[in-house]
Amino acid sequence: MIIICETKATENQINALQQKVREAGLEVHRSDGVEHTILGVVGNRNRLDMEAISMMPGVRDVVIVSTPYKLASREFHPDDTIVRIGEACLVGGMEVAVMAGPCAVESEEQIEASAEFVAASGAQILRGGAFKPRSSPYSYQGLGVEGLKLLRKAADKHKLAVVTEVMTIEQIQTVSEYADLLQVGARNMQNYPLLTALGHAGKPILLKRGMSATIQEWLMSAEYILTEGNPEVILCERGIRTFETATRNTLDLSAVPVIKHLSHLPIIVDPSHGVGTRRFVASMARAAVAAGADGIMIEIHPNPDKALSDGPQSLPFEEYGLLINRCRIIATTIGRRLGKAK
Amino acid sequence: MIIICETKATENQINALQQKVREAGLEVHRSDGVEHTILGVVGNRNRLDMEAISMMPGVRDVVIVSTPYKLASREFHPDDTIVRIGEACLVGGMEVAVMAGPCAVESEEQIEASAEFVAASGAQILRGGAFKPRSSPYSYQGLGVEGLKLLRKAADKHKLAVVTEVMTIEQIQTVSEYADLLQVGARNMQNYPLLTALGHAGKPILLKRGMSATIQEWLMSAEYILTEGNPEVILCERGIRTFETATRNTLDLSAVPVIKHLSHLPIIVDPSHGVGTRRFVASMARAAVAAGADGIMIEIHPNPDKALSDGPQSLPFEEYGLLINRCRIIATTIGRRLGKAK
Amino acid sequence: MIIICETKATENQINALQQKVREAGLEVHRSDGVEHTILGVVGNRNRLDMEAISMMPGVRDVVIVSTPYKLASREFHPDDTIVRIGEACLVGGMEVAVMAGPCAVESEEQIEASAEFVAASGAQILRGGAFKPRSSPYSYQGLGVEGLKLLRKAADKHKLAVVTEVMTIEQIQTVSEYADLLQVGARNMQNYPLLTALGHAGKPILLKRGMSATIQEWLMSAEYILTEGNPEVILCERGIRTFETATRNTLDLSAVPVIKHLSHLPIIVDPSHGVGTRRFVASMARAAVAAGADGIMIEIHPNPDKALSDGPQSLPFEEYGLLINRCRIIATTIGRRLGKAK
Amino acid sequence: MIIICETKATENQINALQQKVREAGLEVHRSDGVEHTILGVVGNRNRLDMEAISMMPGVRDVVIVSTPYKLASREFHPDDTIVRIGEACLVGGMEVAVMAGPCAVESEEQIEASAEFVAASGAQILRGGAFKPRSSPYSYQGLGVEGLKLLRKAADKHKLAVVTEVMTIEQIQTVSEYADLLQVGARNMQNYPLLTALGHAGKPILLKRGMSATIQEWLMSAEYILTEGNPEVILCERGIRTFETATRNTLDLSAVPVIKHLSHLPIIVDPSHGVGTRRFVASMARAAVAAGADGIMIEIHPNPDKALSDGPQSLPFEEYGLLINRCRIIATTIGRRLGKAK
Repeated sequence: MIIICETKATENQINALQQKVREAGLEVHRSDGVEHTILGVVGNRNRLDMEAISMMPGVRDVVIVSTPYKLASREFHPDDTIVRIGEACLVGGMEVAVMAGPCAVESEEQIEASAEFVAASGAQILRGGAFKPRSSPYSYQGLGVEGLKLLRKAADKHKLAVVTEVMTIEQIQTVSEYADLLQVGARNMQNYPLLTALGHAGKPILLKRGMSATIQEWLMSAEYILTEGNPEVILCERGIRTFETATRNTLDLSAVPVIKHLSHLPIIVDPSHGVGTRRFVASMARAAVAAGADGIMIEIHPNPDKALSDGPQSLPFEEYGLLINRCRIIATTIGRRLGKAK
Repeated sequence: MIIICETKATENQINALQQKVREAGLEVHRSDGVEHTILGVVGNRNRLDMEAISMMPGVRDVVIVSTPYKLASREFHPDDTIVRIGEACLVGGMEVAVMAGPCAVESEEQIEASAEFVAASGAQILRGGAFKPRSSPYSYQGLGVEGLKLLRKAADKHKLAVVTEVMTIEQIQTVSEYADLLQVGARNMQNYPLLTALGHAGKPILLKRGMSATIQEWLMSAEYILTEGNPEVILCERGIRTFETATRNTLDLSAVPVIKHLSHLPIIVDPSHGVGTRRFVASMARAAVAAGADGIMIEIHPNPDKALSDGPQSLPFEEYGLLINRCRIIATTIGRRLGKAK
Repeated sequence: MIIICETKATENQINALQQKVREAGLEVHRSDGVEHTILGVVGNRNRLDMEAISMMPGVRDVVIVSTPYKLASREFHPDDTIVRIGEACLVGGMEVAVMAGPCAVESEEQIEASAEFVAASGAQILRGGAFKPRSSPYSYQGLGVEGLKLLRKAADKHKLAVVTEVMTIEQIQTVSEYADLLQVGARNMQNYPLLTALGHAGKPILLKRGMSATIQEWLMSAEYILTEGNPEVILCERGIRTFETATRNTLDLSAVPVIKHLSHLPIIVDPSHGVGTRRFVASMARAAVAAGADGIMIEIHPNPDKALSDGPQSLPFEEYGLLINRCRIIATTIGRRLGKAK
Repeated sequence: MIIICETKATENQINALQQKVREAGLEVHRSDGVEHTILGVVGNRNRLDMEAISMMPGVRDVVIVSTPYKLASREFHPDDTIVRIGEACLVGGMEVAVMAGPCAVESEEQIEASAEFVAASGAQILRGGAFKPRSSPYSYQGLGVEGLKLLRKAADKHKLAVVTEVMTIEQIQTVSEYADLLQVGARNMQNYPLLTALGHAGKPILLKRGMSATIQEWLMSAEYILTEGNPEVILCERGIRTFETATRNTLDLSAVPVIKHLSHLPIIVDPSHGVGTRRFVASMARAAVAAGADGIMIEIHPNPDKALSDGPQSLPFEEYGLLINRCRIIATTIGRRLGKAK
């Protein structure tokens, strides 16, 4: 922690600051600049209340030097984390993982057709919502446990792993019976009791970025899970909220290299929610792979015009197939590998 | 619902659209403009999938005419809703309610001193966190049930009502035993299972605006509570996330007149979280009252420099006292009344 | 400047950093923390390229201690700046200045009626656009010099000062002949050649905040004018761009106390552009005065429904009159004074 | 234009609206819905003041059907515009154009070394700032005309075209003597007098997106140039301002497919300013090409650690060379072509 004093800070104020730091059992180094005196604090800053310091007279600013997250930080864990999803694949290594499927599970036919196509195209993980968070209480809320069963059955038949969302602590056990990867939605990224419980779920977690979460807050939410003993966290960029209304959200692809720099956790990209309309999905999926994402998550639907939920952002099968083929070549260009089509 | 066709839409495409609407049992009115054909759809739009329509060939845009919320809308409920909080006060009528207290309950002395001062200054509601949502797993998380007991005891002694946050469905019952008004924090504004459960809590709800929630999304979250049968929802503006970093959030005071226009629900303002630093709180609290807010929520602390949580945004008692006196005069200026100091 | 080294920075890297600083003729103080070594740089940082330092191996972060603006900073100029506008008023002292008038000058009748009402209500400054920046090339662009003449004539008759926008360097001289206060619009806040030229205009400048300008960038734009020798700059908050679409912009009223803290320059508020619709203007104007603004700028129109430009945000006269009376009382509450109605 | 009436609108109010429309010489079609009456207006809406209508009693909302830009719209100009830059290349067709060079021209050696490398790597256009817009008046402002001469000389030697920024109307003629493509910086995107003047410049224009400009506003700024008779406008995405601070701006790559959908104008991407730090540039440049951009603009520097301006975002030559090779393969994957290295 560094304390920057005001230009007009008095000697008495500076002394009081130094004393406060020493009382907390920490060392302080003073450095008098042309305009400002700077106090460098050495020791475990948790002993000291940074916010209380910042309001003391004569203080202009307090700069925190250490990152607020540790377990998620590359500084403390230089090697990439690689997460195994069921028997299907590893996320975070050389492979670019593909997770695909409908927004919501609607019927056995729909999910079976999707699983078959997903597997044939070379993806490893089947996605599909059973419990759906909807901003309107009047919207379709998902099939619940019935949806989970259909999802598992279709995935097993085609040797795919399953990823699906868990919305409450109570759902964790049930969802864990059917899914290989538990998704935390953007709206729950700062639902701390849920994150804490997921730290004991015994399954890998896919943590979507909150709609207005900074990258630092996102990593701190990952820290909640890691600190409870679950090291298998995959991050998922899905668009942030900005002033632009031409797309549903603004897909922040620069999060990919930034996360790679700050953290060892894998990061995948969900372009479907990012742009919110089918027209722009393929373009952004290709961009995500080119940017270096460890995976992509794509919504597809056998008949997007009849989808009960988020239809307009789901790709028809043929368009999805073409996209995956292109992504495969792009992955190779940067030394990665995307699963073979069958 | 209005369907705007593309300039180059063919007669066949337009006919297909009209047929699709009629198949759903709705009426359609066609109007051919200079550049665009417009189809007006009459009937209950829930029978029609707007998103599926928007992806049909020849469609340029679909405009939803009706609001996505009904119970929260002033259009369907023209009179102001007035919410009674314990025996202490009514929120949403002529009175400007004052809720004050420390960010977190820390000790019996702290909360008792706060309650005494709050009551003497003319406030009706004591605030204080027992369960704290913190973005870092390493931050102080609150006293829990012990904090609730201290809060209730201090409030009863000084004839105040109690508002405090509830973070999970499991906490609702316990918190309801001690509190008169249940607060939903900004991070939980779209935690739909929690909102649904609060619809059955039998207590008024204080719904804070999510950090990046539009006013429409905020009202839709209120709708989740209203639709379950709990009509007592108070909205609380607490700052939104923008690019500006000089303040912790950007307090959106224009939300006050906008909510008054769109909804019948009361709206209060929390300037303490909005700006995040004590220096700017009084200025924004005065502005909130002048803008027409139905109440303000202020963090105070007997000794802000020693507060365990959010100290820098808590006002010392004397500064708070001066502020309330000024707010009282401002309230009078616009025909409102703020409780008398004792 | 403070250099924070990476945890894994080597002794060689740290030595290279120290040497680079000393080569620039600056002093460096080293402080070894538990996780990070910190180097405090003392001296004029302009001699050192902060950005080049930030990319040197072993560097985690560089913190700039001094503010990037000097002349605009309260640290270097503790007393409030008070700007005289013509003979009409002082902005930045005890008075709360009122600037009112139509968005655009449209006709002699319109501006004369406005001036008469503005003067009678107690305002000191007449506003009105002659050169209008419009986002569409097909929108009304203003009356130009003819508008300036009408504005001046109406103002003189009612002993008002004139504020109007200047869009290009070429317009400065002409506009200066007719106006007492030259307005820089939000879209020109970072038009540096224009700012530099206005530093020699010999007239006070009203500098509107850019749509997405941070407070620091805004003060740096003021610095451009101040540094050329024109000390008379008034800042004007007019709303920033956020994700919210219920209002045209989000009026950032917290900018008022923040600017008062960081700078000695006066700050006024333009609620009309901030909210973009007449319904919400009065509420935000009252809030601005309560927040401590040094003035407000209000759009009015004798017949808002027929206004050629920005009609919907202009107040009708009677509503404006009521508003000013309320603002007058609010000003008194916080020890300020708003001009008497005649 | 569509007028949506309030639920409680009276028959008198609806009649008054219809009359107002007819008085403007337009047709109106009425459609009575379950909750709302809707009035469809047919004819040239410029005859009608939409904003005035929106404030009439009984009106809930006014929806504009036609786009506010015409010449920039794909609806009115379905074929892609292809812009020729000097003898060097075509932008907007099958080729992916590469523009590279230093942020600012600093010396003959620097620009000559850059031009040589840029040409060898397969780029067609040399970039370099001679007039620099800087947010601080104390920052390096560029070499001016001397810089232009150095730029031209180096470009000619290596058969490259030149792109550089023009900041004022006065500079247009001078810059046009040396440059093949005139760049409008983000801060000038809504400098309408400058845009209007560039409509007569007789050179292609590179229009950078404003820091907080919506895609619609950006296209309307292009319209200012097009409407004056200059059809050669290339758009350049360079990052928008959001709440995220881990990158300088948030590069909005989804602007690429959105612009391709809405407009026929070419769009290129400048990842260097988007992310603001060298570490993340290559990743985003690859993503831009994969997303379908018509070109990329990259800052490079023979010795980035010594650059006078924006050094940290400039790539060293070898890293740039590797990047271009990868982009070339990615371009091929999606059926495009990126110039051959020599």
